[in-house]
Amino acid sequence: MEKRYYSYEDFLADVKLLAQKIDWKFDTIIPVARGGLTLGHLFGEYYNIREVYSINTIGYDDTDKLEDVNVFNIPDLGEAKNVLIVDDIVDSGDTMIEILKVLHQRYPGVTFKVASLFYKKSAKIAPDWY
Amino acid sequence: MEKRYYSYEDFLADVKLLAQKIDWKFDTIIPVARGGLTLGHLFGEYYNIREVYSINTIGYDDTDKLEDVNVFNIPDLGEAKNVLIVDDIVDSGDTMIEILKVLHQRYPGVTFKVASLFYKKSAKIAPDWY
Repeated sequence: MEKRYYSYEDFLADVKLLAQKIDWKFDTIIPVARGGLTLGHLFGEYYNIREVYSINTIGYDDTDKLEDVNVFNIPDLGEAKNVLIVDDIVDSGDTMIEILKVLHQRYPGVTFKVASLFYKKSAKIAPDWY
Repeated sequence: MEKRYYSYEDFLADVKLLAQKIDWKFDTIIPVARGGLTLGHLFGEYYNIREVYSINTIGYDDTDKLEDVNVFNIPDLGEAKNVLIVDDIVDSGDTMIEILKVLHQRYPGVTFKVASLFYKKSAKIAPDWY
């Protein structure tokens, strides 16, 4: 696998591009830990949203993909209406599918949308913005 | 109030300095949202710790300090023994005192230590590392 260096300047530029694409008003940000934490931090500052609640998953074992994805540390979304889930990459899509399933089950009245910096076309689910 | 620009390079250098100071083995990282999220992300990668669970507080209203600090979105620490709480700054110390109080009450068997990039000498509590 080819590895590329992704600089902070490139990251910031991509975060700004992503923010420009998001034509939706949300009240809560859920970064997927760990990869989405810095993006969630920047988006929280950028949109002046304090409701930044991380969520955790297990499923990857370094670069090997396991079949099961376990979603835990699910935040309390009692006050939320429109929630943006952010991650660095939607890879196979398995993790995001499971996160959406768990969150929809627990919070049927909340609208969830997904933004990620990167997205593999082969993924089973596409982010709303990337 | 004088505002200074704090570059990402300075931030990274400070994160490395902070990591060198921490002579303690921990299994879980709790970033205080939002300020501690990026530090928590970097520490999670650096120490190869996937157990990065953010916690939230309300108490600041921009730069004005309120007296009450409300700690919420408390993570499940059922598997944790040694937990490092990370934030960008320990200012008055009110927030960190309340976080430690709430976490000690809920998880009396867990050891909590605090690392922050910055620390005001006037704070009511000093981080273990800064």
